[in-house]
Amino acid sequence: MLLTRMNDERIKVAVVGASGYTGQELLRLLAMHPRVDVVSVTSRQEAGKLLTEQYPRLRGAETFAGLSFMAPDVDAIAATGATIAFLALPHGLASEYAAPLLSKGLKVIDLSADFRLRDPAVFEEFYGGVHPAPELLDRAVYGLPEFYAEEIVSADLVASPGCYPTSILLPLVPLLEAGLIEAGSIAVSSLSGVSGAGKKADTSLLFAEVNESIRAYGAPKHRHLSEIEQELSVAAGDTVRISFVPHLMPITAGIASTIFCEASGDLAGLSGAVHEALVQKYAERPFVRILGEGSFADTKNVVRTNFVDIGWVIDDRTGRLILSSAEDNLGKGAASQSIQSLNLMSGWPETTGLMNF
Amino acid sequence: MLLTRMNDERIKVAVVGASGYTGQELLRLLAMHPRVDVVSVTSRQEAGKLLTEQYPRLRGAETFAGLSFMAPDVDAIAATGATIAFLALPHGLASEYAAPLLSKGLKVIDLSADFRLRDPAVFEEFYGGVHPAPELLDRAVYGLPEFYAEEIVSADLVASPGCYPTSILLPLVPLLEAGLIEAGSIAVSSLSGVSGAGKKADTSLLFAEVNESIRAYGAPKHRHLSEIEQELSVAAGDTVRISFVPHLMPITAGIASTIFCEASGDLAGLSGAVHEALVQKYAERPFVRILGEGSFADTKNVVRTNFVDIGWVIDDRTGRLILSSAEDNLGKGAASQSIQSLNLMSGWPETTGLMNF
Amino acid sequence: MLLTRMNDERIKVAVVGASGYTGQELLRLLAMHPRVDVVSVTSRQEAGKLLTEQYPRLRGAETFAGLSFMAPDVDAIAATGATIAFLALPHGLASEYAAPLLSKGLKVIDLSADFRLRDPAVFEEFYGGVHPAPELLDRAVYGLPEFYAEEIVSADLVASPGCYPTSILLPLVPLLEAGLIEAGSIAVSSLSGVSGAGKKADTSLLFAEVNESIRAYGAPKHRHLSEIEQELSVAAGDTVRISFVPHLMPITAGIASTIFCEASGDLAGLSGAVHEALVQKYAERPFVRILGEGSFADTKNVVRTNFVDIGWVIDDRTGRLILSSAEDNLGKGAASQSIQSLNLMSGWPETTGLMNF
Amino acid sequence: MLLTRMNDERIKVAVVGASGYTGQELLRLLAMHPRVDVVSVTSRQEAGKLLTEQYPRLRGAETFAGLSFMAPDVDAIAATGATIAFLALPHGLASEYAAPLLSKGLKVIDLSADFRLRDPAVFEEFYGGVHPAPELLDRAVYGLPEFYAEEIVSADLVASPGCYPTSILLPLVPLLEAGLIEAGSIAVSSLSGVSGAGKKADTSLLFAEVNESIRAYGAPKHRHLSEIEQELSVAAGDTVRISFVPHLMPITAGIASTIFCEASGDLAGLSGAVHEALVQKYAERPFVRILGEGSFADTKNVVRTNFVDIGWVIDDRTGRLILSSAEDNLGKGAASQSIQSLNLMSGWPETTGLMNF
Repeated sequence: MLLTRMNDERIKVAVVGASGYTGQELLRLLAMHPRVDVVSVTSRQEAGKLLTEQYPRLRGAETFAGLSFMAPDVDAIAATGATIAFLALPHGLASEYAAPLLSKGLKVIDLSADFRLRDPAVFEEFYGGVHPAPELLDRAVYGLPEFYAEEIVSADLVASPGCYPTSILLPLVPLLEAGLIEAGSIAVSSLSGVSGAGKKADTSLLFAEVNESIRAYGAPKHRHLSEIEQELSVAAGDTVRISFVPHLMPITAGIASTIFCEASGDLAGLSGAVHEALVQKYAERPFVRILGEGSFADTKNVVRTNFVDIGWVIDDRTGRLILSSAEDNLGKGAASQSIQSLNLMSGWPETTGLMNF
Repeated sequence: MLLTRMNDERIKVAVVGASGYTGQELLRLLAMHPRVDVVSVTSRQEAGKLLTEQYPRLRGAETFAGLSFMAPDVDAIAATGATIAFLALPHGLASEYAAPLLSKGLKVIDLSADFRLRDPAVFEEFYGGVHPAPELLDRAVYGLPEFYAEEIVSADLVASPGCYPTSILLPLVPLLEAGLIEAGSIAVSSLSGVSGAGKKADTSLLFAEVNESIRAYGAPKHRHLSEIEQELSVAAGDTVRISFVPHLMPITAGIASTIFCEASGDLAGLSGAVHEALVQKYAERPFVRILGEGSFADTKNVVRTNFVDIGWVIDDRTGRLILSSAEDNLGKGAASQSIQSLNLMSGWPETTGLMNF
Repeated sequence: MLLTRMNDERIKVAVVGASGYTGQELLRLLAMHPRVDVVSVTSRQEAGKLLTEQYPRLRGAETFAGLSFMAPDVDAIAATGATIAFLALPHGLASEYAAPLLSKGLKVIDLSADFRLRDPAVFEEFYGGVHPAPELLDRAVYGLPEFYAEEIVSADLVASPGCYPTSILLPLVPLLEAGLIEAGSIAVSSLSGVSGAGKKADTSLLFAEVNESIRAYGAPKHRHLSEIEQELSVAAGDTVRISFVPHLMPITAGIASTIFCEASGDLAGLSGAVHEALVQKYAERPFVRILGEGSFADTKNVVRTNFVDIGWVIDDRTGRLILSSAEDNLGKGAASQSIQSLNLMSGWPETTGLMNF
Repeated sequence: MLLTRMNDERIKVAVVGASGYTGQELLRLLAMHPRVDVVSVTSRQEAGKLLTEQYPRLRGAETFAGLSFMAPDVDAIAATGATIAFLALPHGLASEYAAPLLSKGLKVIDLSADFRLRDPAVFEEFYGGVHPAPELLDRAVYGLPEFYAEEIVSADLVASPGCYPTSILLPLVPLLEAGLIEAGSIAVSSLSGVSGAGKKADTSLLFAEVNESIRAYGAPKHRHLSEIEQELSVAAGDTVRISFVPHLMPITAGIASTIFCEASGDLAGLSGAVHEALVQKYAERPFVRILGEGSFADTKNVVRTNFVDIGWVIDDRTGRLILSSAEDNLGKGAASQSIQSLNLMSGWPETTGLMNF
């Protein structure tokens, strides 16, 4: 684990855009964080309303006593004394807030896609439209603490990763770095809970539509591919293209990813090498749990936690390695991962407020 | 559609082993079949009990009025006048009933795995133990009516296919026959409802274990692989090995399969060729619904029906074709498919009693 | 059962307002009805679109081959040759179509609340606003075939009952008629699947909101109370007021009602008298299944059927009778019940097309 | 809130019987408790196995590192240095451990029914068989901290309440004490998640049986009635008998109770008096959240917390008060409530380790 000053400070934070599922989960987790005071929550549509009225689950949380939603005004946010702002806004909108907040001296942890891609052309290709703040891309750190902890410690703009990317990168990156698998052979089937689709008034997301339904969507070019391939390419030292099929599942939260790939070399010894590569990469990382060969990760063991579980099997009949990972799409895939960055940026142990089971 | 005599006859059938989910779904469907009288249902543990006491949903069905479970005795079954017997028994047990029933002159539709594999050595490899009745293997017809309708018409022993195989073979076989895809490149991620695991008093299948849980299992060598690869090899004219990962989903019924494979030739024109191959193969088959390119099959459109839906996308970034299929694991994957065979064997339109929506 | 002419005719029907869950279930059931041709389906928002594009589950149904939604124009509907129109429209809107359709000579089966209440003042109290077509109220028959079969046979305007009322009236009316219970003591807790809330783009009905959630709503004055109390008062021969608490459940379809009430007389013999009253009332009614004392009705035995199951227990510690009923809110509580009326109006056995399990 | 010494001590605890859902939830919560070291977990069937192997969700929890299940031997438990033992055992079995553990000097918090009833004859009536340790009944305190906090502080044997009782007593007791309602008029409809039925290998609890199913069970004489009526009688100062119908719901955890009762006096002012009675009773109790008139409690706001939410409406058409409460059956209804007692017995703030959202 990184060295951390065991300081006693508390920090004041703002949550900008608190009406979606990511914002809601962030608030739930911050309510239990021992060193955070939430001093500002914004929501254009709920401005003026008590936070606990909107989220009755959070009644009783000390940090929210008397706190009301405010309109998302940068000056007003800064006036609350917040030193770090989480942006839980739609992509495109987040960057409108990042620059002014940074210039007011706040650090920014953005949960949208706006600062995840280093190349604005890739943003354009996958998200459409010109990137709204390309000048900030160099300043942004990709907020996957298992890979970029040191950069996060000193960052003032963190781009917290997408949910699918987190579940796919954590098992694959160490194997690509170790040269164990063929980058061109990767095909991923990911299964996600419905909260991943957001809190949208859309009939296709109604209970009666999603319940008892299993279906693929978004293939072959889901937006998260851009981010997945960017980081896989870094790990492989070469451009990587993969096949990726997400599926919508009748559960509230959780992502399970099943990854097919071919071994670079001989199958003999592959499982041991995979184990070694993962253990070495994550030896000091408290939130990656390696299940070992023959195990499949189950979303029910990780929902509402910051853990990612990883297992695998060797398919020696076809020469493939099959990896299995599970995380909470709103947790390690979004809200709790962004708090992990907060902890690092604040000089606290990265587990602070996150050892939830 | 095959020529059928539009005869008016009714047929008396027996359901041997009616206490699992497949047997239960079979009874539910037979209750609505216009030409079938169920004269015998067996269950060792429920013998003597009224069928409608065990299955309160079926109260009111004419064919079950007054019908009680009987012990699974071949003479007693034959004495009821049944001319066709469905075996909804565990593998291994089914073959104990098949031979004596055949020798009593009944036709047999077996829903277990006992007669699906042509090679007893493959049975041994995947199911363990010596095959209990290898002498019947030549006599058995693989009961996938979309491929073997003519053989089924004149069969007296039908081996009704497994649930996963049906969902995987229907999209793939026409493409292998047409030489459109590389057989060695196939990787399948299948998502199944819990009823596929059977009605077993096993804590891992409890509601509180399965609900809000998504997990892979059974890879890399699930038993159904044997049957899938047998039929894919026939289609390809060569031995085929594939990767196959089934997943357990928190839905009662339904299977969605997502299939990755590489094109044999150029990607240009592939989608059209796929469409053409499927349309041609299934032109006369009422239960295969081709959704076309860009569509993903959803289990909610097929549960409690005998339909299989098939869609696909071309992933031109990686050179892959990605197929999507959906069926009801208890329906087209088991019970209703076996009734489709019954219809063919009885000279009726194969849709008889199966146009359920 | 009522005498029915076993005629061979087919009937052409229109479904006006086919974009909600009731309309959708009606179409699903009509696809399997042996004597109905659906010649017109209307939907303002889907006009021009193929019905099977909107409802992929219904692809393959003969009656829908080539059928497109049309705008809800009365002349156009009449021009299709439909002789009976189902109205699956919101309350208030239904009555705008009823009068012109009746004047064109069509019979109308309305699934909204517009014609269920005999007293327009009660409509005003519970639904708000002046009744839009009070002159039709005398002409309308309350479409609960178990009570009003003879009137339905000769009706040209049928007001098909609400979902909760059906589940509450069927167990209670015979007991009030027999004077077995105290009308003033009735308190009902009803549990309904989410489809009962309609196909509305409302975030409170999203999967992620409803899943793992159980809550009461709408008490103490849910709109359906008006209809329930109207019919209970008829049965009791006096004004009846009851307590009624509906609950939203994380299932797609189904209603279970649990009813507390006090015996009029002695508890000794009450259970037998309850049994007798129910058996006598429903002796000729194929869709009411009496489970008997000590049984509780389960929604899973009735969803997608037209059955209502009824059980009860005697709570001799408190002197109460506790009744339990289950139905499908979209089935016997809406769509299939309206087809039961169609059958009666058409001179067919009332079970035609409805013996689904 | 009660005065508490803000001591810094940690406490060593044992969990006896850790293989059911209550034991599992207890372990999950203890993993996050800042002052507890779990030094002993027993399970006859899992003895010798690593706890985290059985409960993969708990991997990474410091207190469980290296901890294995042990056989439930009293000497061995005492030898671990545990000073408090939780018993998460079936009723009947718990009392076999309570006496020897007490005599070894451990305090005992029993989550079974063994010590909840003051009168062994009532135990016999509801649970069958002679009470196994009647001599301990006087020593036991009913562990509902909102009513018995002072007794719990000094107790060495706490009988933690049942799940249904907690959800019913918290709304009703203050109203009976204030004389606001007629004790004889109470009828309760409770809706519970499936975990309440325990982790039993029973086909009736399989996912495919419970999913899409809603049904009552256990009425009119569920075992929990004994405990509910005991405490209501204390509150009313007279024997109280109520009607109680529990229902099984397709959710993992949570109980919603809907309570019908009649006002003692005039309806005018009743709502205000109800509000006043609840607020006064629970002013210092952090885990009761009063939603107020017109609100219905939703299980999704309380699952995995120790909160109980209470709302109500006045049904002035029938003269009834209708109360609505929600809790987590495994949380406030079992495991977290027992930790609330632990906190009190240990001199800590009762919220310690329990402010989870």
